[in-house]
Amino acid sequence: QEPTERRTAVPGVATGLAVTGAGGDVLYIEASLADAETGGTGLTLTGQLGDVMKESAHIALSFLRSRGAELELPVTDLRDRGVHLHIPAGAIPKDGPSAGITMTTALASLLSGRKVRTDVAMTGEVSLTGRVLPIGGVKQKLLAADRAGITTVIIPRRNEPDLDDVPAEVLDRLTVHPVGDVREVLKLALEPAEVLVAAA
Amino acid sequence: QEPTERRTAVPGVATGLAVTGAGGDVLYIEASLADAETGGTGLTLTGQLGDVMKESAHIALSFLRSRGAELELPVTDLRDRGVHLHIPAGAIPKDGPSAGITMTTALASLLSGRKVRTDVAMTGEVSLTGRVLPIGGVKQKLLAADRAGITTVIIPRRNEPDLDDVPAEVLDRLTVHPVGDVREVLKLALEPAEVLVAAA
Amino acid sequence: QEPTERRTAVPGVATGLAVTGAGGDVLYIEASLADAETGGTGLTLTGQLGDVMKESAHIALSFLRSRGAELELPVTDLRDRGVHLHIPAGAIPKDGPSAGITMTTALASLLSGRKVRTDVAMTGEVSLTGRVLPIGGVKQKLLAADRAGITTVIIPRRNEPDLDDVPAEVLDRLTVHPVGDVREVLKLALEPAEVLVAAA
Amino acid sequence: QEPTERRTAVPGVATGLAVTGAGGDVLYIEASLADAETGGTGLTLTGQLGDVMKESAHIALSFLRSRGAELELPVTDLRDRGVHLHIPAGAIPKDGPSAGITMTTALASLLSGRKVRTDVAMTGEVSLTGRVLPIGGVKQKLLAADRAGITTVIIPRRNEPDLDDVPAEVLDRLTVHPVGDVREVLKLALEPAEVLVAAA
Amino acid sequence: QEPTERRTAVPGVATGLAVTGAGGDVLYIEASLADAETGGTGLTLTGQLGDVMKESAHIALSFLRSRGAELELPVTDLRDRGVHLHIPAGAIPKDGPSAGITMTTALASLLSGRKVRTDVAMTGEVSLTGRVLPIGGVKQKLLAADRAGITTVIIPRRNEPDLDDVPAEVLDRLTVHPVGDVREVLKLALEPAEVLVAAA
Amino acid sequence: QEPTERRTAVPGVATGLAVTGAGGDVLYIEASLADAETGGTGLTLTGQLGDVMKESAHIALSFLRSRGAELELPVTDLRDRGVHLHIPAGAIPKDGPSAGITMTTALASLLSGRKVRTDVAMTGEVSLTGRVLPIGGVKQKLLAADRAGITTVIIPRRNEPDLDDVPAEVLDRLTVHPVGDVREVLKLALEPAEVLVAAA
Ligand SMILES: [Ca+2]
Ligand SMILES: [Ca+2]
Ligand SMILES: [Ca+2]
Ligand SMILES: [Ca+2]
Ligand SMILES: [Ca+2]
Ligand SMILES: [Ca+2]
Ligand SMILES: [Ca+2]
Ligand SMILES: [Ca+2]
Ligand SMILES: [Ca+2]
Ligand SMILES: [Ca+2]
Ligand SMILES: [Ca+2]
Ligand SMILES: [Ca+2]
Repeated sequence: QEPTERRTAVPGVATGLAVTGAGGDVLYIEASLADAETGGTGLTLTGQLGDVMKESAHIALSFLRSRGAELELPVTDLRDRGVHLHIPAGAIPKDGPSAGITMTTALASLLSGRKVRTDVAMTGEVSLTGRVLPIGGVKQKLLAADRAGITTVIIPRRNEPDLDDVPAEVLDRLTVHPVGDVREVLKLALEPAEVLVAAA
Repeated sequence: QEPTERRTAVPGVATGLAVTGAGGDVLYIEASLADAETGGTGLTLTGQLGDVMKESAHIALSFLRSRGAELELPVTDLRDRGVHLHIPAGAIPKDGPSAGITMTTALASLLSGRKVRTDVAMTGEVSLTGRVLPIGGVKQKLLAADRAGITTVIIPRRNEPDLDDVPAEVLDRLTVHPVGDVREVLKLALEPAEVLVAAA
Repeated sequence: QEPTERRTAVPGVATGLAVTGAGGDVLYIEASLADAETGGTGLTLTGQLGDVMKESAHIALSFLRSRGAELELPVTDLRDRGVHLHIPAGAIPKDGPSAGITMTTALASLLSGRKVRTDVAMTGEVSLTGRVLPIGGVKQKLLAADRAGITTVIIPRRNEPDLDDVPAEVLDRLTVHPVGDVREVLKLALEPAEVLVAAA
Repeated sequence: QEPTERRTAVPGVATGLAVTGAGGDVLYIEASLADAETGGTGLTLTGQLGDVMKESAHIALSFLRSRGAELELPVTDLRDRGVHLHIPAGAIPKDGPSAGITMTTALASLLSGRKVRTDVAMTGEVSLTGRVLPIGGVKQKLLAADRAGITTVIIPRRNEPDLDDVPAEVLDRLTVHPVGDVREVLKLALEPAEVLVAAA
Repeated sequence: QEPTERRTAVPGVATGLAVTGAGGDVLYIEASLADAETGGTGLTLTGQLGDVMKESAHIALSFLRSRGAELELPVTDLRDRGVHLHIPAGAIPKDGPSAGITMTTALASLLSGRKVRTDVAMTGEVSLTGRVLPIGGVKQKLLAADRAGITTVIIPRRNEPDLDDVPAEVLDRLTVHPVGDVREVLKLALEPAEVLVAAA
Repeated sequence: QEPTERRTAVPGVATGLAVTGAGGDVLYIEASLADAETGGTGLTLTGQLGDVMKESAHIALSFLRSRGAELELPVTDLRDRGVHLHIPAGAIPKDGPSAGITMTTALASLLSGRKVRTDVAMTGEVSLTGRVLPIGGVKQKLLAADRAGITTVIIPRRNEPDLDDVPAEVLDRLTVHPVGDVREVLKLALEPAEVLVAAA
């Protein structure tokens, strides 16, 4: 497994957490925008996503289409350029609503050009108004984040009680941020915009 | 469970009542409009909605497309901006016609910018002409509304006899409005438009 | 059950007759036209309609698209405004061709602005040229019409022999019109256009 | 059963022959063109048609789109006006390729405004180049035509040997035209164009 | 069975070879182009074609869209006029990739206006670059061609070894052309363009 | 089996490696662009590709739509000209993510006009950001490449440990390039652009 750092080295990639048959795992949600002159349009979803996970992508996109301007994101890109969300590995089926905030973050990173912090992973269902709703598997997900070298984890506020089940030594190594709104997620997870210094 | 108040704190969210395997429950119907410049179009439905519930959304939308101008709603938004209706939690399948008036209310709230009253929950099938048709599970739904701190419930007029089955102490805490037309629902459930006071 | 009178109080609603597991029943076919500025387009069908019933709606619409001008209906509305046909109750599956003339009548009522007579119910398959073809369940349908307070029933001419099976006391209360062409149905079922009297 | 004469009293209806569980039967193929100002487009097929029969309709339409101008038909109507082909009765499933020449005839009748001769019924698969290919059930179909009062039947040339199986007394009452090309069918089946006599 | 000569008497029809349950058979692939003013668009496929055979049609069309200009074919017709490929008999399911070069030939014949030689039949999978790939059933196909009066057969070069299995007397009557590229097929199978001699 | 050299003799064809029931095999991914004036649009996928393999094609295309301009590829072709990806043989079902880098290479070859080196074969999943992810069957694939006369093989860097399982004599004959990014693949696999020497 390669370090997370490399996977999120470009804007548009966010680190999520999943429950698999063999415990928890990190996953990377990749987003891309087609150059406008290539004729790409619409939303493409790949990675063998199930129905519920596809709906999460639509929710993330609609949230940005209705609230993105408030967040000072260049939302006209969503009209002019095709959006693609992909979750490797491509042959493994994935489903469930808990990638909602990660999808929203990947898209916001892509639109803003701000990278996602490489030390941050996250899990949480997102609602159409941006609320963060509780998910399952908190313990396995935090163990997986810890194994992958992640140091900061974002979870739904309503999942705070589940932290009781996580071994103390793991919690010691992790900074856990319980959140109630996806706007908090974006503040925590996105790096500052890079400042372009013009030569004098 | 968070208070209903927070969920309906923005226009476009209405509180419904559902029958589940474990009695009744409140659910939140969230509606959003894409900013016109984002290229969002059409109607998107998420939340693992079954066929009948999807049809309810189309009925609610067609009602507003044919009667919304009479209600002084800015119906051209329905042409220029994509509509999305979502019902959390995203992984739980939902079906049936009884969210019809709640969907209509969420959409009317969104278009008008008037919030839905946080103390109000509702259940009822809506017809294409705006009639409110009877539904099942009145007892379980009112018990769930009461448990969630709701104080006002809207039900179909033809369900009035079912109130006999609801415990008197619950009915004491609730104001129940039996209605025959969805226009009555909108009058009862939507807050007045906020008055913008211009600085002199 | 509410009186039919209320259901057909607006143009676009016609009263049909169906055979159910428990005998016959009246049903209401509701049609709406989206305001042109709302962007609604095409034909939307709801009410858990089966394949054959959906085809009946397409036949009714094509009949009006090819013959509506002869009937002095404003057929350009069918181009500029989305059409929605719905049959409550929304959760009950419905199928069969016998709602064909009722669908045609609901659409013609909507386009013309002429209400459907509240004392009239009807049953009959419609062909693309407007012919009225025979259907089943005449006896049960007439009993249901009579129970619902209907006084005038339109049936296909080729179903006249089935009237022998209807109890005489029911036939005494009903005026039955056997017809061969849907144009006869429209003449019988639509109220005269309301005369707008301008103030002098 | 009503006389065939009435069914083909308008351009756009042709009489076909089918094999059913109970022998043969006549069927009527109805075609309509939407008025251009109604916004109807494309090809609509109804009557519970199976895959093979739907393909026959596409073949008939493509034949007219590529060869109709040679036949002096106003083929631009196929661009500007929606086409609908329907075969009553609407609830009975129908399939097979043998309605191909009947569909072509109904469409050519509609485009030309020339009625189909009421004494003519036909059966035959049509190919994309207009060839008439053999079909099954010639005996049952001719018996059905005879029972329905038809006096002229068009069959594929390659089905001529099957006439041996038809009772002599039926063949005595029928004029049978074996054909190899759908252009022959149109010459045999379409009435002359009505001459409009202008008042002097 | 009618002579092949008649079936390919117009541009757009090519003779293929198929393996059926009862040995081999010839089949005719018919192509048509809608007149531009009829509004026909896209690619229509009929004849109960299976998935693999439908893909062959798309490959043939894409080959002409990318390489047709080099072959001096009027490829803009593919933009302006709907293409229809049909394989009679319409009720018999057909599948497999071996009609690829026959489909390409039928389309090239149609575009060029050059008829396909009536003495030629062919079989071979085509790739997107025009390569001719091997197929099965060479023996049965050549026997069928011979029975149908075909004198020239085109097969994939990589199927040459299968000629060992064909009876010598059949091979004596046939001229067999093994080919590696569909451009060779077109040279062998298409008649020269007809010279229009203008009256002086 | 024909030499790989001939298959990749034109831009747009890349050599991949697959695991089949009978060990490994080489496969050829063919890409074509419709001439703009032929009206071809969108992405067509043929060769009986499974869901995962179809998604790989979408990922390859989106990668070029978002990153192709950086690679100095004429990406507006993707807007103006239909793209078709095909994998012979057409009747054999194929699936899995390991053709991702081969599809990307075929498309980049087609757009750039630079041929793919005939001595190179490759295998690897591609992510939306261009990362090369590990695949299975390295041993069988390298044995197949060697049998087919391939001398250079590109594999994912994370599959390097699998080289231990490949017989030394095979590895002696092969140059193996482990890569982490598809941009490395393009540098290794594409021939230099042909220099057009203008006559003085
Ligand atoms: Ca599902
Ligand atoms: Ca706990
Ligand atoms: Ca259902
Ligand atoms: Ca009760
Ligand atoms: Ca059905
Ligand atoms: Ca009777
Ligand atoms: Ca079928
Ligand atoms: Ca015989
Ligand atoms: Ca298949
Ligand atoms: Ca052999
Ligand atoms: Ca699959
Ligand atoms: Ca190993």
